[in-house]
Amino acid sequence: MIKERVCGVFGIIGHEEAANLTYLGLHSLQHRGQESGGIACSDGTVMRRQIKMGLVSEAFKRNALQELPGRTAVGHVRYSTAGSSDIRNAQPFVLDYAHGQVAIAHNGNLVNAGDLKKKLEQAGSIFQTSSDTEVIVHLMARSGQPTTLGRLVEALSQVRGAYSLLVMADGKLFAARDPHGFRPLVLGRLKDAFVFSSETSSFNLIEAEFIREVEPGEVVVIGDSGLTSSKPLPKKPKKFCVFEHVYFARPDTTFDEQTVYHARIELGRQLAREMPTNADVVIPVPDSGVPSAVGYSKESGIPFELGLIRSHYVGRTFIEPQDSIRHFGVKLKLSPVGAVVNGKSVVVVDDSLVRGTTSRKIVKMLRAAGAKEVHLRIAAPPTTHPCFYGIDTPTRSELIASNHTVEEIARYITCDTLSYISHDGLMKAVNGQDGGFCSACFTGDYPVELSGGANPIIPLRKRIETDG
Amino acid sequence: MIKERVCGVFGIIGHEEAANLTYLGLHSLQHRGQESGGIACSDGTVMRRQIKMGLVSEAFKRNALQELPGRTAVGHVRYSTAGSSDIRNAQPFVLDYAHGQVAIAHNGNLVNAGDLKKKLEQAGSIFQTSSDTEVIVHLMARSGQPTTLGRLVEALSQVRGAYSLLVMADGKLFAARDPHGFRPLVLGRLKDAFVFSSETSSFNLIEAEFIREVEPGEVVVIGDSGLTSSKPLPKKPKKFCVFEHVYFARPDTTFDEQTVYHARIELGRQLAREMPTNADVVIPVPDSGVPSAVGYSKESGIPFELGLIRSHYVGRTFIEPQDSIRHFGVKLKLSPVGAVVNGKSVVVVDDSLVRGTTSRKIVKMLRAAGAKEVHLRIAAPPTTHPCFYGIDTPTRSELIASNHTVEEIARYITCDTLSYISHDGLMKAVNGQDGGFCSACFTGDYPVELSGGANPIIPLRKRIETDG
Amino acid sequence: MIKERVCGVFGIIGHEEAANLTYLGLHSLQHRGQESGGIACSDGTVMRRQIKMGLVSEAFKRNALQELPGRTAVGHVRYSTAGSSDIRNAQPFVLDYAHGQVAIAHNGNLVNAGDLKKKLEQAGSIFQTSSDTEVIVHLMARSGQPTTLGRLVEALSQVRGAYSLLVMADGKLFAARDPHGFRPLVLGRLKDAFVFSSETSSFNLIEAEFIREVEPGEVVVIGDSGLTSSKPLPKKPKKFCVFEHVYFARPDTTFDEQTVYHARIELGRQLAREMPTNADVVIPVPDSGVPSAVGYSKESGIPFELGLIRSHYVGRTFIEPQDSIRHFGVKLKLSPVGAVVNGKSVVVVDDSLVRGTTSRKIVKMLRAAGAKEVHLRIAAPPTTHPCFYGIDTPTRSELIASNHTVEEIARYITCDTLSYISHDGLMKAVNGQDGGFCSACFTGDYPVELSGGANPIIPLRKRIETDG
Amino acid sequence: MIKERVCGVFGIIGHEEAANLTYLGLHSLQHRGQESGGIACSDGTVMRRQIKMGLVSEAFKRNALQELPGRTAVGHVRYSTAGSSDIRNAQPFVLDYAHGQVAIAHNGNLVNAGDLKKKLEQAGSIFQTSSDTEVIVHLMARSGQPTTLGRLVEALSQVRGAYSLLVMADGKLFAARDPHGFRPLVLGRLKDAFVFSSETSSFNLIEAEFIREVEPGEVVVIGDSGLTSSKPLPKKPKKFCVFEHVYFARPDTTFDEQTVYHARIELGRQLAREMPTNADVVIPVPDSGVPSAVGYSKESGIPFELGLIRSHYVGRTFIEPQDSIRHFGVKLKLSPVGAVVNGKSVVVVDDSLVRGTTSRKIVKMLRAAGAKEVHLRIAAPPTTHPCFYGIDTPTRSELIASNHTVEEIARYITCDTLSYISHDGLMKAVNGQDGGFCSACFTGDYPVELSGGANPIIPLRKRIETDG
Repeated sequence: MIKERVCGVFGIIGHEEAANLTYLGLHSLQHRGQESGGIACSDGTVMRRQIKMGLVSEAFKRNALQELPGRTAVGHVRYSTAGSSDIRNAQPFVLDYAHGQVAIAHNGNLVNAGDLKKKLEQAGSIFQTSSDTEVIVHLMARSGQPTTLGRLVEALSQVRGAYSLLVMADGKLFAARDPHGFRPLVLGRLKDAFVFSSETSSFNLIEAEFIREVEPGEVVVIGDSGLTSSKPLPKKPKKFCVFEHVYFARPDTTFDEQTVYHARIELGRQLAREMPTNADVVIPVPDSGVPSAVGYSKESGIPFELGLIRSHYVGRTFIEPQDSIRHFGVKLKLSPVGAVVNGKSVVVVDDSLVRGTTSRKIVKMLRAAGAKEVHLRIAAPPTTHPCFYGIDTPTRSELIASNHTVEEIARYITCDTLSYISHDGLMKAVNGQDGGFCSACFTGDYPVELSGGANPIIPLRKRIETDG
Repeated sequence: MIKERVCGVFGIIGHEEAANLTYLGLHSLQHRGQESGGIACSDGTVMRRQIKMGLVSEAFKRNALQELPGRTAVGHVRYSTAGSSDIRNAQPFVLDYAHGQVAIAHNGNLVNAGDLKKKLEQAGSIFQTSSDTEVIVHLMARSGQPTTLGRLVEALSQVRGAYSLLVMADGKLFAARDPHGFRPLVLGRLKDAFVFSSETSSFNLIEAEFIREVEPGEVVVIGDSGLTSSKPLPKKPKKFCVFEHVYFARPDTTFDEQTVYHARIELGRQLAREMPTNADVVIPVPDSGVPSAVGYSKESGIPFELGLIRSHYVGRTFIEPQDSIRHFGVKLKLSPVGAVVNGKSVVVVDDSLVRGTTSRKIVKMLRAAGAKEVHLRIAAPPTTHPCFYGIDTPTRSELIASNHTVEEIARYITCDTLSYISHDGLMKAVNGQDGGFCSACFTGDYPVELSGGANPIIPLRKRIETDG
Repeated sequence: MIKERVCGVFGIIGHEEAANLTYLGLHSLQHRGQESGGIACSDGTVMRRQIKMGLVSEAFKRNALQELPGRTAVGHVRYSTAGSSDIRNAQPFVLDYAHGQVAIAHNGNLVNAGDLKKKLEQAGSIFQTSSDTEVIVHLMARSGQPTTLGRLVEALSQVRGAYSLLVMADGKLFAARDPHGFRPLVLGRLKDAFVFSSETSSFNLIEAEFIREVEPGEVVVIGDSGLTSSKPLPKKPKKFCVFEHVYFARPDTTFDEQTVYHARIELGRQLAREMPTNADVVIPVPDSGVPSAVGYSKESGIPFELGLIRSHYVGRTFIEPQDSIRHFGVKLKLSPVGAVVNGKSVVVVDDSLVRGTTSRKIVKMLRAAGAKEVHLRIAAPPTTHPCFYGIDTPTRSELIASNHTVEEIARYITCDTLSYISHDGLMKAVNGQDGGFCSACFTGDYPVELSGGANPIIPLRKRIETDG
Repeated sequence: MIKERVCGVFGIIGHEEAANLTYLGLHSLQHRGQESGGIACSDGTVMRRQIKMGLVSEAFKRNALQELPGRTAVGHVRYSTAGSSDIRNAQPFVLDYAHGQVAIAHNGNLVNAGDLKKKLEQAGSIFQTSSDTEVIVHLMARSGQPTTLGRLVEALSQVRGAYSLLVMADGKLFAARDPHGFRPLVLGRLKDAFVFSSETSSFNLIEAEFIREVEPGEVVVIGDSGLTSSKPLPKKPKKFCVFEHVYFARPDTTFDEQTVYHARIELGRQLAREMPTNADVVIPVPDSGVPSAVGYSKESGIPFELGLIRSHYVGRTFIEPQDSIRHFGVKLKLSPVGAVVNGKSVVVVDDSLVRGTTSRKIVKMLRAAGAKEVHLRIAAPPTTHPCFYGIDTPTRSELIASNHTVEEIARYITCDTLSYISHDGLMKAVNGQDGGFCSACFTGDYPVELSGGANPIIPLRKRIETDG
């Protein structure tokens, strides 16, 4: 159960209900980011934007959507970075430049954004946000290319890193994916409209037909004359983020013909094969650990039970009461079912293990409820390296597996045994034996070189805007 | 998956952190009512109250609790009745009368409240709310008894129906349960403090020790000299609401030594025994149908899979967009996993079936995802009668089972087969063969006579207070 | 410039735009109370109410009024009492009792409300507010009279003190004024509708025709069959509050055929006659001191100038900054015009003097701006006694004139000379030589006996409702 | 009584209470703009900003100021332009560029901002607002000068029009005034701190010592080493806005050694000399017409009375009720005092006359209150031309005097006689016989050429950001 988050993007062109469908699309991508949601819509003349902090379903009221007329829209849900909830960084951005207006929504992270921003500022540019995404628009503004596509390609040829990008400008909708294809981006059709989304689960919801993935390095343009596609950037090996299968994506989403639910069932089965355990009962850490626990139970034959109940009511705004009761955090979210674990040897299946603090509390909770033995099984390899391609991971020093052995971790967590799936087992489960995945967080093998070791996140810390 | 809701009550006396612990207690009872939450706290001199619309975890901010000093507190979470979200009806009520202040929190419904209110008004009383609970305080105010306990008992001797009641007055905390014990109420201990709650799951969270249930007809008083108990009301047969096991309570709660999770596993097993099915896969309607589906799978040997994904982000405030996309309601909440159900014969297990509209949409959704056959299994008997003891059920005409045969319902829902657990099977699963349960919603056998057939909910419709 | 405040009431029956006109009426009475405003409206079946904290013009938005359909309405603006802004006390009250619904709006204060409330509570009544007004409705609820008028008269026959009262019930509008007629209440006509207001300025605004004052001791009823009037209470000598002329009422209002503006001009003239001063310039303390300063200038021949500028932007919510700049309070509101006062001997005219703190700051400010001499002239006698009939005055100990001589006050204020108008002069200016006014705040001669010296304001302090 | 508005700026450097004093300064400048207020503060490392819609006194709460630590601050109050209340345009702006952060607050209007913005965008700049002020910062960002002063001067040398400007950057505070000195800007001292403000009234409030005006064309820099001044721009004739005396400024402010109050008294005297009238009473249109009416009364000997009462409670958010009562707008703000005007021949003095609609309503109101004759006297010449230097005037077609004779206007307004002060009389009253004033709104004689007839206000209409 890790705390990492990514972002989600959705776009549509050619539908009377563009804003409504984008709202639904963001709803289906909500698990990718809960900090803020935004929709920008164009009616051909005017771009309008609504940006809201919080959940799409709670923040967008009916009249918000009514104020967004038009047949083209892009939307974005954003993850929550520690301590910063500056609405200036909420996407989509809508910017005016010499060639009109541009709306942009971005999932990913550019590793050379800091360098580019510095150069642009030295040439006189003024940035509005601390987001790496804004760099792309400034590069477009500085481009001498005569078309929007030309300016976008010129900008993309200067950036390095991960991006699945939607750009609305000039009456067209542009979709671009970086040459490695780190982040997902899929193309679909709803009657006469084209739709793009981070996940196919959006298409299930709005009853759109899945056409295909936007390919790594591809730029798709939808305009009045339909769809055109090009691959203007140097080809690179595919490096799709394996963590999408492990944790981020919804179980009903499909990437490259593999459904995430089945990948997770396979992870559980593989885990049972690699590390068989003699126990009375298999219980998941809900909700993300459930499919792997089902898979583990199937393969091992140990009965599956719900030994931990997850509250639906742990919001994003839990107050921290007085010291005397501060340690209730995890207990509010998860409660053991005494009758299931009491006197039993229990296998606990979780999707990943980052810092270890939550796992430690779960083990303590299960023992207090009477569990005789607690065997922790993780459906991912040890997370040893931070991600620089769009996931908000802790620094290396906080990743428990980067500086401790499995035995040390087990001791810290106080479980009887701990085991992780192997890297090979992971690749087998996601059909990635022949490559095609980025698993740098487990291996440290980064496909795109970082920018001089500098933090690729551009800080805009000095200017503080508060609400009094 | 029914829409009914009850209420939850929590109280504590003798703890420095009374408001904080009540906040945590209400958090653990949040599933019993999401419309409003309230905490009243006494520091021995002053009673303070905070009432909030919405979820406890979102509505109560840190300073709300800081403004509630004192060692005694009562809290309440309230269900949402159709069309009425008048904060005047949010509990606990705090009222001034000749003998000082009274705070009251009530789970249940009084069937003769309308008659009593009419009589009291004719004698000159003025009511502040449309809640039946207020009748009890007016009866106390009119009582000539010299003690709070005497006034409370005199009031309770005049009301009929269901109540699990907490009253804070006079530096004491009073807990009362109606003679049939319709609604749950349990007593626990946390160091020197006594606590009451609707469910034992609250005690798990705050690490209080469970002592015992408050018995039907019992009035418990906690004061400076400790706990005293009496049974001042005529004894009646126990009639605990069976729906608490079927749907309301959290799986980790225990009633009369039976854990709800196990009761639901047993319901699933019994359902499989009563109606074996030849199918490829068992899938639950999440989340409430999961334990019964696990039980069904265990008993039948048909593999358990998560064929429906439940979104965590369907809030209480979903906007209804334009007509063209209005039918997305259920799809936002539940999505089929095509890879699980495609080409399969599927058993779907749900906890109950009230109107049939949601089930119909689920069946349609599963067929669209490729299910070959859909067999619906309900872990409760047909719901044929409304509840008058504290559950917000639809009227009889809306209960599909009250005027249709199982075959007619199956045809409406468009499933291949439909079957319910038998009433005997239900009783067996909850250890209720020898009685002790109210199952009037399945049988029409009402333990407490209704008041002249009139609607026992007292309307206060004429006075409308809006927020502009 | 005193800080006292009263309340204002407005009512209308028989007009399609009842809520809109009540909104306008309250707007014209806003100077009588800025803490809260409320409108209750009846469409013959349902009473609806909107209560808002703050100014009517800011708090009531368009849709607030749209939610108040009906042809009968009563409204109320309320003064701000120190430390208490509990919306539960905001009027009009709308209460349900055995005979239906009653809305009530009250200007004044009942001196025996505390005693009556105690008796009613001992008989089992439960109060909702700490307002003396609620006592009247409880007395009505306990009355055995068969008609609303009968119940109202029975209630009024038990209360003592000051009231100008509007009651909406039973499809009728009732207006009542206490036998002394302490507080104003006037009757007008707008086409087929009847209107009541605290001041005639309301009629000017809505273009209603002034008919007459509601007489002391009179109860007027407007129903389907038109206007009926009675004087069911024992006759008493008229005692109209002289402070209405001195300070409260708008200058364009007329009481008993005398326009308040002219009364204030006369107060200034009389002040100049009683205490001629040799000075260069007459300046008012704006805005309430302006008419008296104009009168003083006319009578004395000393030129009138605006030597103090009043800011329009001193809101009710001025923040108190750090200690170092806390003393800016009065300076934010009033600024001296150096060019007017520099090197001059200045007569400053103010309407009244209560604590002396503001006057002291004004004198200091004028001297700093270069005034050679400052002569303070007060267009009212020394305020020596608190009011118990509806004005929120300080306690006696805070009234500087109750325990200091004029010389002592002048020394405290640091003005060169100080003089007040005489009581006879005041009576002459308001045409009150033959009586008919209550001037207890200047004389201590209270027309209605107080209730055992007890504070007639009923406290409801123990129950605290905050907003977290 | 015109509806035009300007803006106000305030800055301070070298005081522990910089934000508090800026709050007070903006309070004293509130009459120059009520739409929004903003404060930016620097603690030497971080710039923080608070921007609020609405009045400074209501919008800034205590904690807003507490979140603005630092010894240097700039503030701004902004006027309300029709239909646009986009908070993106609220100042001070705080922008990041290659050389760090810049905060800027601007009173005035640049006539070539549109041209400059177009050129900057074509070179790749991206603007954040539709404000002409932002152009200055972009010009600074593009400058190759090594110092902030150098960059500021290079930027100012490219803009044309009116500006009184405060810039906070680099630990310094910069104040600049355009070469004509259209808008006011004064320099003062408070202990060790330097302060700048649009008006001397701010210094009266915070007890700062007035030093001198910032001169036209001057750039003042306050840094660690004290004050330095330069005049880097080509010298131009002084053209101070005469409307500051006529209407905008507070009466207690002094410009070029003349107090505004006295200028207005003189305007009234001059008006009486130019156009003597045989009447019974002189009444002002409050509040801005009061000093001129006092002057008119003094010179003519006709008695001064308050014949129109101004409500303090006409907020910015007056709702427009149903059609039937929509015409109450002016009546809510102004009410005639019947007893003053009934049967009288009345001279009404107002400060200016723009569209004529309000004057027409006032005349109608006075006649309904019984006035026998109404003679309207305007303490300014006919307003015939719009302002392009920072005042939000109507277009020429809406200025009634631009296309109607005085007789036609009198007929429209329905007054008995109408006369304006002459342009010569105006200049005499403000000591401007020898020039030094811009009075283009009365003469059409624009000191700075407009930019190709184009609207100098840069629109940013296409991008619409709403709040749902």
